[in-house]
Amino acid sequence: MQYQNLNKAASFIKIAGYAEKQEFNFKDKLDADRVKKCIVPMAAGLNYSWAAKSVDDQCLKLLQELADEQELINKYKSLLNGDMINTGEKRKVLHHLSRGELGQPVMEDGKNIGDFYKKELERFCNFANEVHNGKYKGSTGKTFTTVIQIGIGGSDLGPRAMYMALENWALAEGKKKLNAKFISNVDPDDASQVIAESKLDESLFILVSKSGTTQETLANELFVKDKLVKAGLDTSKHMVAVTSETSPLARNSAYLDSFYIDDYIGGRFSSTSAVGGCVLSLAFGADVFKEFLKGASEADKLALENDVLKNAALLDALIGVWERNFLDFPYTAVLPYSQALSRFPAHLQQMDMESNGKRVNRNGEPVDYSTGPVIFGEPGTNGQHSFFQLLHQSTEIIPLQFIGFIESQKNDDVTVDGSISQTKLNANLAAQIVAFAKGQDSDDKNKEFPGCRPSSLIYGKKLTPSALGSLLAHFENKVMFQGFIWNLNSFDQEGVQLGKVLTKKVLSGNFGDDALEAYSKILGV
Amino acid sequence: MQYQNLNKAASFIKIAGYAEKQEFNFKDKLDADRVKKCIVPMAAGLNYSWAAKSVDDQCLKLLQELADEQELINKYKSLLNGDMINTGEKRKVLHHLSRGELGQPVMEDGKNIGDFYKKELERFCNFANEVHNGKYKGSTGKTFTTVIQIGIGGSDLGPRAMYMALENWALAEGKKKLNAKFISNVDPDDASQVIAESKLDESLFILVSKSGTTQETLANELFVKDKLVKAGLDTSKHMVAVTSETSPLARNSAYLDSFYIDDYIGGRFSSTSAVGGCVLSLAFGADVFKEFLKGASEADKLALENDVLKNAALLDALIGVWERNFLDFPYTAVLPYSQALSRFPAHLQQMDMESNGKRVNRNGEPVDYSTGPVIFGEPGTNGQHSFFQLLHQSTEIIPLQFIGFIESQKNDDVTVDGSISQTKLNANLAAQIVAFAKGQDSDDKNKEFPGCRPSSLIYGKKLTPSALGSLLAHFENKVMFQGFIWNLNSFDQEGVQLGKVLTKKVLSGNFGDDALEAYSKILGV
Repeated sequence: MQYQNLNKAASFIKIAGYAEKQEFNFKDKLDADRVKKCIVPMAAGLNYSWAAKSVDDQCLKLLQELADEQELINKYKSLLNGDMINTGEKRKVLHHLSRGELGQPVMEDGKNIGDFYKKELERFCNFANEVHNGKYKGSTGKTFTTVIQIGIGGSDLGPRAMYMALENWALAEGKKKLNAKFISNVDPDDASQVIAESKLDESLFILVSKSGTTQETLANELFVKDKLVKAGLDTSKHMVAVTSETSPLARNSAYLDSFYIDDYIGGRFSSTSAVGGCVLSLAFGADVFKEFLKGASEADKLALENDVLKNAALLDALIGVWERNFLDFPYTAVLPYSQALSRFPAHLQQMDMESNGKRVNRNGEPVDYSTGPVIFGEPGTNGQHSFFQLLHQSTEIIPLQFIGFIESQKNDDVTVDGSISQTKLNANLAAQIVAFAKGQDSDDKNKEFPGCRPSSLIYGKKLTPSALGSLLAHFENKVMFQGFIWNLNSFDQEGVQLGKVLTKKVLSGNFGDDALEAYSKILGV
Repeated sequence: MQYQNLNKAASFIKIAGYAEKQEFNFKDKLDADRVKKCIVPMAAGLNYSWAAKSVDDQCLKLLQELADEQELINKYKSLLNGDMINTGEKRKVLHHLSRGELGQPVMEDGKNIGDFYKKELERFCNFANEVHNGKYKGSTGKTFTTVIQIGIGGSDLGPRAMYMALENWALAEGKKKLNAKFISNVDPDDASQVIAESKLDESLFILVSKSGTTQETLANELFVKDKLVKAGLDTSKHMVAVTSETSPLARNSAYLDSFYIDDYIGGRFSSTSAVGGCVLSLAFGADVFKEFLKGASEADKLALENDVLKNAALLDALIGVWERNFLDFPYTAVLPYSQALSRFPAHLQQMDMESNGKRVNRNGEPVDYSTGPVIFGEPGTNGQHSFFQLLHQSTEIIPLQFIGFIESQKNDDVTVDGSISQTKLNANLAAQIVAFAKGQDSDDKNKEFPGCRPSSLIYGKKLTPSALGSLLAHFENKVMFQGFIWNLNSFDQEGVQLGKVLTKKVLSGNFGDDALEAYSKILGV
């Protein structure tokens, strides 16, 4: 299997040549036939629609060539089989294994890692059941009504976004077991507010840190413990840990129990591991979390398809590279028309930007082409009343990723002016796609819309646990494929280290740099 | 006074020439002296630090020339005096007047508009006092404990961000009067969730729509009224309106009272009007809202300074244009190291992108230079564990806007490893600025940080109401000055219209476009 930089690929040269003379105007080509034709089925009943992308048959053919030449599916298989894909940290990359085994059994030191993940899954699912059944209670005998996750980055964004995505669904289905809250920031006002709004005697805390050394998380742990002690509670009865087996938090009597992950699941890909699973099982029940895993696993399986028209993650990745490297768009907006997905863009922002915001290839050699885009977004229709002005009418083109569902989660709706709100929501979504694509001429240039703003749409019947798993895995796999195309290591994050080193210098008082000292001084440090 | 496109300015040509040969390396120049020197005082005790910007004395001199040549201060004065600055909609632009009179009295049809704003301010402040004093109660006699704003875009983002910014401060100061919640999205799951989590008999709703015709807001009004009626409550005792005097919501017996704004205050600039004032006065008391106005008004006054070294909003605007048009950076990240400001970036995203995301000048003629950047951001330290990887190490440079405060709002903190959390927060902030600016060499290119990532820092003692007013007005004025520099009309938003038109077509069933019909069909409309 060959790993090579994108611009070393023969197909790259071909695509660049094509891009130079490409005149495919999807603005004029976007009709009902194209909408019906350009759909790739995804897992759990979702679909990926790329009709409003600036991609014609010839472009698609060239993108397939690129996928084949860069051996994207073989690289994915190699990852599934446990090869050392994280070249920077010399680690396997196994988040797929947290939801199903698609490759060969992954063994290490005689241990089957898939079995380890399965065992932990059963352990935290059982723990959640026992909390729901009342075996575990707070130290004053109160039933737990709230679970509060303490974690930052991947231990926060994914689990929080997934919880918010399913809360209304669970309420409607009678599946909501516990409220979940999250403490992440080292800003003490964050923890203070969450604590002030919670009944501590009914709260169970999940401390999440793979290394067991995350500065923010340890500071917040002690913040919380201080409050628990002051409330006369036994901290060890109110806290579990999610960590690695070698961390100081493991097998520690300070916690009710500990659940384990390992270095082969990166924070931003850990929503399907104990990092997301513990809080989601407690909030919604183990059966709901397993449905979520099923959707993700099904998506992982579809991502093995060689044919870009059968593999939505692969096609999405390739179109993203087409837009990034050949059309030179440096950003992508993620626009879910679903309030439940209001923090999903923030999770994608981490997943994508931390994975592919790199300037060296997997061997540590600088690359001379663009890599991952800036990701941002807010839910629709809110975004329409905010930054859509720029998307429609600025001097720049920003590719768009829409997400929508036919049904709302709660089906609690009213008819106003002849339609329910859910219908209005989706009417807006359809209207925006077409408005961005086709624009509008006008003699008054201030009212003219140039159009040709490309978008894709992921849609399905309803945002259920399995649909959410499918959606999450789609983007995880898209980001993975893009990393392979760009020849990056998408699974380390050396860019976070320098800040940590300098922070330690500030806190130790050995600044070693007079500007650092001056900034610290004006900030009262 | 001359309005001209940016690239017609003589100083533009000079700056472009300078940019081509500019070799100012702030990476090597950033020392304690520069940090101490490059500070511009702002209102309410805040400061604007631009030491880590790629701007030397010569650049600064040229930017001052540009400010003078484009007559930025005169244009601001013209706006304050009530001239028709919103050329697209042929309207005055008067949000400054909602917090103080800095120009001549603005008269229209014999009416003093400043007096009108003042009168409404006193009316909603009195109303808030009367709610707090118990004169108004719910229809079953319950004291109001929660205020719920129904609005979208500018009627949501600014007020919500301001509320979140002051909630912890108010709790610490004993100023918190009512909880505030917000319903914005037409997605029925949004309103349904807020309602499910609220005690309706103790809730007062504020319906905010200037035109009184906003689709989402009217749908949510009826959604809420339906719930109130089902709960046996009198809707007219639980709802006030904030609207224009000519809207269907004005002087309507369906509401307990109505408070007025007019067409001269755009939604995204309306936080200091009744749109923000009603909910903020109810939540925190009228005195707190007036402190907030004072900070904003003081900032507006400072923005009249001609000298860029005495006018932070002007300098910030000019540096932004330097980065956008001469260094070609298409985005800016807003990074408040303050959990209280967690939704402030979302508000700036609207304020900036909806104002200056334009491709025609104030006369409706297409411009041939870049205009407003994409704005995105999350609070630190959270962002460090998310997208900072890309900011530090990607192939692109993204200008950064940091915000920080010496003290936390609640002063509820613990010492861990020798420092409190607030100290850790600011140590991280100082460390990031220097890490971005100076980078780090390494033989391992994967661990190399190129540096030269420019940032500015707004900092102050504590995020109080007046500091928040100062911060908000700073960005409003920055956006205004940038609009003047680019010769745009920053105060209309024609880009939102086409989507509205097509949505109506979908809802009426007269699609007029088969792609629009096909998209509607797959979305179940």
